[in-house]
Amino acid sequence: MNTFRKEHDFLGEKDIPNEVYYGIQTLRALENFNITGIPISKEPLLIQAFGYVKKAAAIANQQCGVLSPQIAEAISIACDKLIEGQYLDQFVTDMIQGGAGTSVNMNVNEVIANIGLEYLGHQKGEYDYLHPNNHVNFSQSTNDAYPTAFRIALYIKIGHFIEALTKLQQALAVKGEEFQNVLKMGRTQLQDAVPMTLGAEFHGFSTTIKEDIQRLQEARLLICEINMGATAIGTSINAPEDYPEIVTKQLAAITGIPLVLAEDLIEATCDTGAYVQVSGVLKRCAVKISKICNDLRLLSSGPRAGLNEINLPRMQPGSSIMPGKVNPVIPEVVNQTAYYVIGADMTITMAAEAGQLQLNVMEPVIAFSLFSSLTYLTNATHTLTDKCIVGITANEEICKSMVMNSIGIVTSLNPILGYETVSSIAKEALQTGKSVHQITVLERSLIEQSKWDEIFSIENLLHPKFIN
Amino acid sequence: MNTFRKEHDFLGEKDIPNEVYYGIQTLRALENFNITGIPISKEPLLIQAFGYVKKAAAIANQQCGVLSPQIAEAISIACDKLIEGQYLDQFVTDMIQGGAGTSVNMNVNEVIANIGLEYLGHQKGEYDYLHPNNHVNFSQSTNDAYPTAFRIALYIKIGHFIEALTKLQQALAVKGEEFQNVLKMGRTQLQDAVPMTLGAEFHGFSTTIKEDIQRLQEARLLICEINMGATAIGTSINAPEDYPEIVTKQLAAITGIPLVLAEDLIEATCDTGAYVQVSGVLKRCAVKISKICNDLRLLSSGPRAGLNEINLPRMQPGSSIMPGKVNPVIPEVVNQTAYYVIGADMTITMAAEAGQLQLNVMEPVIAFSLFSSLTYLTNATHTLTDKCIVGITANEEICKSMVMNSIGIVTSLNPILGYETVSSIAKEALQTGKSVHQITVLERSLIEQSKWDEIFSIENLLHPKFIN
Amino acid sequence: MNTFRKEHDFLGEKDIPNEVYYGIQTLRALENFNITGIPISKEPLLIQAFGYVKKAAAIANQQCGVLSPQIAEAISIACDKLIEGQYLDQFVTDMIQGGAGTSVNMNVNEVIANIGLEYLGHQKGEYDYLHPNNHVNFSQSTNDAYPTAFRIALYIKIGHFIEALTKLQQALAVKGEEFQNVLKMGRTQLQDAVPMTLGAEFHGFSTTIKEDIQRLQEARLLICEINMGATAIGTSINAPEDYPEIVTKQLAAITGIPLVLAEDLIEATCDTGAYVQVSGVLKRCAVKISKICNDLRLLSSGPRAGLNEINLPRMQPGSSIMPGKVNPVIPEVVNQTAYYVIGADMTITMAAEAGQLQLNVMEPVIAFSLFSSLTYLTNATHTLTDKCIVGITANEEICKSMVMNSIGIVTSLNPILGYETVSSIAKEALQTGKSVHQITVLERSLIEQSKWDEIFSIENLLHPKFIN
Amino acid sequence: MNTFRKEHDFLGEKDIPNEVYYGIQTLRALENFNITGIPISKEPLLIQAFGYVKKAAAIANQQCGVLSPQIAEAISIACDKLIEGQYLDQFVTDMIQGGAGTSVNMNVNEVIANIGLEYLGHQKGEYDYLHPNNHVNFSQSTNDAYPTAFRIALYIKIGHFIEALTKLQQALAVKGEEFQNVLKMGRTQLQDAVPMTLGAEFHGFSTTIKEDIQRLQEARLLICEINMGATAIGTSINAPEDYPEIVTKQLAAITGIPLVLAEDLIEATCDTGAYVQVSGVLKRCAVKISKICNDLRLLSSGPRAGLNEINLPRMQPGSSIMPGKVNPVIPEVVNQTAYYVIGADMTITMAAEAGQLQLNVMEPVIAFSLFSSLTYLTNATHTLTDKCIVGITANEEICKSMVMNSIGIVTSLNPILGYETVSSIAKEALQTGKSVHQITVLERSLIEQSKWDEIFSIENLLHPKFIN
Repeated sequence: MNTFRKEHDFLGEKDIPNEVYYGIQTLRALENFNITGIPISKEPLLIQAFGYVKKAAAIANQQCGVLSPQIAEAISIACDKLIEGQYLDQFVTDMIQGGAGTSVNMNVNEVIANIGLEYLGHQKGEYDYLHPNNHVNFSQSTNDAYPTAFRIALYIKIGHFIEALTKLQQALAVKGEEFQNVLKMGRTQLQDAVPMTLGAEFHGFSTTIKEDIQRLQEARLLICEINMGATAIGTSINAPEDYPEIVTKQLAAITGIPLVLAEDLIEATCDTGAYVQVSGVLKRCAVKISKICNDLRLLSSGPRAGLNEINLPRMQPGSSIMPGKVNPVIPEVVNQTAYYVIGADMTITMAAEAGQLQLNVMEPVIAFSLFSSLTYLTNATHTLTDKCIVGITANEEICKSMVMNSIGIVTSLNPILGYETVSSIAKEALQTGKSVHQITVLERSLIEQSKWDEIFSIENLLHPKFIN
Repeated sequence: MNTFRKEHDFLGEKDIPNEVYYGIQTLRALENFNITGIPISKEPLLIQAFGYVKKAAAIANQQCGVLSPQIAEAISIACDKLIEGQYLDQFVTDMIQGGAGTSVNMNVNEVIANIGLEYLGHQKGEYDYLHPNNHVNFSQSTNDAYPTAFRIALYIKIGHFIEALTKLQQALAVKGEEFQNVLKMGRTQLQDAVPMTLGAEFHGFSTTIKEDIQRLQEARLLICEINMGATAIGTSINAPEDYPEIVTKQLAAITGIPLVLAEDLIEATCDTGAYVQVSGVLKRCAVKISKICNDLRLLSSGPRAGLNEINLPRMQPGSSIMPGKVNPVIPEVVNQTAYYVIGADMTITMAAEAGQLQLNVMEPVIAFSLFSSLTYLTNATHTLTDKCIVGITANEEICKSMVMNSIGIVTSLNPILGYETVSSIAKEALQTGKSVHQITVLERSLIEQSKWDEIFSIENLLHPKFIN
Repeated sequence: MNTFRKEHDFLGEKDIPNEVYYGIQTLRALENFNITGIPISKEPLLIQAFGYVKKAAAIANQQCGVLSPQIAEAISIACDKLIEGQYLDQFVTDMIQGGAGTSVNMNVNEVIANIGLEYLGHQKGEYDYLHPNNHVNFSQSTNDAYPTAFRIALYIKIGHFIEALTKLQQALAVKGEEFQNVLKMGRTQLQDAVPMTLGAEFHGFSTTIKEDIQRLQEARLLICEINMGATAIGTSINAPEDYPEIVTKQLAAITGIPLVLAEDLIEATCDTGAYVQVSGVLKRCAVKISKICNDLRLLSSGPRAGLNEINLPRMQPGSSIMPGKVNPVIPEVVNQTAYYVIGADMTITMAAEAGQLQLNVMEPVIAFSLFSSLTYLTNATHTLTDKCIVGITANEEICKSMVMNSIGIVTSLNPILGYETVSSIAKEALQTGKSVHQITVLERSLIEQSKWDEIFSIENLLHPKFIN
Repeated sequence: MNTFRKEHDFLGEKDIPNEVYYGIQTLRALENFNITGIPISKEPLLIQAFGYVKKAAAIANQQCGVLSPQIAEAISIACDKLIEGQYLDQFVTDMIQGGAGTSVNMNVNEVIANIGLEYLGHQKGEYDYLHPNNHVNFSQSTNDAYPTAFRIALYIKIGHFIEALTKLQQALAVKGEEFQNVLKMGRTQLQDAVPMTLGAEFHGFSTTIKEDIQRLQEARLLICEINMGATAIGTSINAPEDYPEIVTKQLAAITGIPLVLAEDLIEATCDTGAYVQVSGVLKRCAVKISKICNDLRLLSSGPRAGLNEINLPRMQPGSSIMPGKVNPVIPEVVNQTAYYVIGADMTITMAAEAGQLQLNVMEPVIAFSLFSSLTYLTNATHTLTDKCIVGITANEEICKSMVMNSIGIVTSLNPILGYETVSSIAKEALQTGKSVHQITVLERSLIEQSKWDEIFSIENLLHPKFIN
């Protein structure tokens, strides 16, 4: 049989089921916000991050002499449980809520208070002994605690994404080496250009991801600037004088993240520039990964009416009607994830722009979007590496024959014959179907066979030298 | 103890837990796609819609003489169960997948086959009697079955959104009447303009939503065009000649939706224009609802350092540190939802543009985005109506005093005194703090008191007449 | 030698060069807004549209008895000159300005007043005889005159775009017929699917554009709703009672556009929904045209290391270093234009969402974006038709040989042999390089040669019949 | 009388007007691309940048011994003229073109060749003596010359934007000091929060812009990585071995920009990540500037029915119908510019994602979008500073009275009375209209008057101290 306790706030009183650790403000949030159906518990790192924040605040408050050791301890113990991942089901607030994160912060304050109360031998709801606002939230405001927890979770999640990217980058580099002697046509604008190696192509993919990792690391540093102690709108109202510095140091120590206190707390409290920056860099990563996947799909097109230069691992039957068809499903799912991330960046941009005066009230949808983008893109990146890149093989003969059969090799004749003469060779090859060799050496006798052999040796095609 | 059955496809063999109704291709999808962690079962209307599609196909195939009555019946019975919402947990494919929907279609084909097999007295996996591809998918391809089911689900979901909008529109209209005699300052560019009524303002909100409903109804009609019978790439390969027309009529009859067969099946199979259109209209709705919410937040700003013209229902304490503060959390959550929808539109746009040749392989992320947008926006619209609009009250005295205190009322003097003279009155009022009446009537004697009274009667301010 | 006249407004006095027809408010706008460097005269249709609006207003005002025939005539005459394209260089306001269009409206009011003054035998600036605000702008506000002129210009420009699309659609249809017997492989997900004709592919392009034209026509109707007579914020303040209906009818008559008066003028004055809708449909068009261009670039890739199914007209040398290279420059420029339009849609969305209370102050950037999108996309569409589509030729032999060489033709065997058997044929073909015919007829004797010939006749490949 | 010279390329021959310095390939571009009507000459920095690139290439080629001193000198002299801004009207190619920049590169090559030919005493078109491809473009490809020139122009333009931002930041900082003793209500979610100073608000604006400047400086460094010597697709084909390093050093020396050679030329040739990054940071700047403008418009709303805390400089009459109305036109135009930039970022994102294989063919629209965004946003930033920020004044009395009249000041009582007691005071104040002082000190006697005076001294309100 369900039993209830009564809780009240300044808007009235409500029955709270006795078994839950959240209180009246969380219950109101639950009633008010039914948008995505996705509770904040789906982002366990956010709850963990709040554990860090509230613990650091309790310790700092004790150090500042405004919280008793007993209460600070009870809060710390409760926070440790959140950090360990316990009580996750108590975080029921919808991912998208109004109130600029107040409901999330109060959900956390209430759960910590009730865990702490039980630890102290009291009943849930006996807030006189340990109060969500007066104790757990002491020296804090949603305006500082919420973005700080958000940033810590973000920092950790970006770290996970960097790991996934690093694995991808290494897998691409391995393929770059493996394919270093596979000669193939390079293409610009989907038109045959000049020869290159498949290895150089994959090495290029690897390089481009390496740069993304660097950009992410830079962007990650930006979110290390926090505003703990800002309290309401950055005035530090109701916080002891030394508290901001102390809590920041505590939090850095507990989390191992190089957190620093913002110099201008008024600005830091309303600013969402760092989120826009992070999202912009995520978008950049998405664009580049998507470009790689587009290329993989092109290069593996066929098998007989396409380019067919490479084979992707065959993951699943590709059609409910066309037997034997296998599709590049892994790059496809990655492309789609990239489009999700790009769309989410637009959401974040609008939310950031909509912030008014001393606070950006749209931060929850920024958090939801960044968390989703990071989760999906990290998953997609692992999927791409594990289920596609590592198993790619080259169709070496096909690659080579397209080079030898091409007109694009004429470019190598430029320094000797000049752009205009060479153009006329290319034109004749295209119109007659003759090979470049036939026209240049045999018919027009423009260069000697020996010179031809020097220029079009496999070695020179693989690693072009300047021959004049 | 778990037992397994063996299933195979042309890529090999796998152990399938005996209790599940999906088969080897679904299992491969489950292994391949771990992106969002959100299975397609989270969109029950999609599964229901597939039930309709597969049932209509079975009936049409029987009518065309290519499926035995017994098998057609088994498929139909299985489809009915999906339509009723049974077996939902068997739809495990991730919302974002590669393969252009093949995994979703095969998930459905396999579950239906195994339900049907049990109905026919066979074991799951005995596909000789009822085969996912040869029977359930007969005369179909993912290229037609998937978009058709998607469209049916979309049609129904748009209907739900239209219901929510209609309720919102009516609630706004009620407030429009309720506030029809509340005089207030109109504002352009956040600067005082001329008087209007609060009722006209809410009536305007109601009108704008009414127009959105009309646009949605038009857009919804576009997705009634389906391509059943297109099979692979729209060639109708492997489908009996009359099948496309027959299955379309069956499907329209079963669903009660005015579905029509596309004239150009090649085009219909790769085109995603209707999704872009629907998303564009959703974005339009989001923009307009967001604008209304922006206005509500402005008009209710304060209570003492803001406009304070209206009161929104007080839903929850607004701050963890500032006692007594109550925030406009409902409009805020709606704004954020709107930004989500606008971001999703970008995802859809990119996915639509990326379609190549005979199929748009990015349809799953289009479906995911449209479904999310519709779900969230429908929820947000209900929330806005129920938890905000219906409880709004006006601060009538504050509204009126701002009018009487304003300089903007001078505009009414234009036809009599001309723009330039009136400008000078306004300028003097601004600089000296004097009232417009003081300057115009008492000091400059530009018009008689009686004329003034005629122009600035409450009646004329509420409903301006042209006075020359 | 430059001479000047003095003009003043309620902010002060300024010297205006005597030769210019605009006045002090335009000069202020010129000083205040130096953003794009693109004056509104670059959109001559907007100036022409304002000519219509101001003329209709003058006539209506005269009919309502609030403007003398002489002044109304002077205004009308001046408007006619604007409609004819004269005085274009007098419209100097930057395309992006603050003030919600007031500067544009005043630029128009001032130029018309001064042209009218000269017509009446007065000097420029002698506004006592013909005043920009008191006469030219009579019964109007920027809030109604500006959006109405904007909509008229938009209506005409959409018409031009529809013409361009119609020409494109017809050119594609012609190619659809021309290529109706060119057999080729259809592809899904860039993988070989089943045979189709190149004609069906181009016919599909034609169909998809035809649908866009219909959507544009619908969207164009939405902008026929105007708010003339709304004056300030839609209150109709300072307008004669019958004026709104009269001026709307006049304007419809003069322009030949089916303009109607909005029912809710308050709503109509602040609403930008129709612009969002038009932009959404433009984006849809851009997406679809871009998809066609992507396909054209793929199909013409090569010439030797690509698909090479079609030849695009050779427009210009494609490389400064690679002789003989020719690129698909026309589709490329069209793709880029499409991306511009999609970006502009985002600008418009944000501007629409940012409208507050009784007016959307961001309308100028909406106008700028819609005008640019329409101009660029109309130009790009003509370019695509004239310089690419009409000159496309097919490489018929290459197309056919890819079909005959393909594995994808196995799908036609499904109804006879079943999905699983056919899968094994496909798999063997892929692994061994054997032809489907070799495996099916010669080695496994699964069907007779005569049945094979029936199924794979050119006729059946071009127009698949259901064969059981 | 017009005279013509004949020029030919491998597609044929054309008449070129004798007076123009461009040649046949530019003429083809002119005929092919009529999209925006905006020629590349509208971006003089791009032409100047090409002058640097071609000059550095000529010097490097001479140093490598592949170009004669005489020809190198002629090219250098011609480049100097471009750098000085001469011959600007010869750059006629449309801003949006197909061909990945080839037309721009050839436009430059041809103009330089013909200027050089005249310098050498030859006629325009006598390319045997100085050839656009064989000499001016020696050791180059559009694939390297174009992005390098683009990046140099971008680098300089970002510098101009940084200057504008720095001026804005300083102007905001000045206001921050000027208003440091203006007490006002802070607001979160548009609801009264706690007191702050207007100075802190403007100081916060200054801080936020300062951070943007840092982000821009970082992003600008990314585009210093160039790929000169990559030639076709990054293979360095046809370039002397030492050329890439030599030309990079030359170019860095000539421009004074810290240019470095990319390590992976294959990757550098197709990568557009740096543009996406720059655009993302520009978007970030736009978002933040737009937020500031939104705030300025809110704070200056009124004059009588708004917040009216500050006065913006009065720039122009605000209405064609409402006399005396003055609008915040400068922030408004800046907001609109920000929306333009955000839209352009989407264009850039799509263009970047669409790059295929060895080259991103969409670079011209990326260049067009970045150039426009930078130009418009730089102009808007100067406008904001000069015509708005520097002239802002505070309505000090209004600001202060809103604080004293507020309920939000109760937050200061939290540490003494606790959140719940204080909530009840706030609630009573809201319901009864009583002041917080009345309830707290006079009626409920919760604190002494002397304590009240300590907490609510102006000094403590301006700079809150923790009082327990």
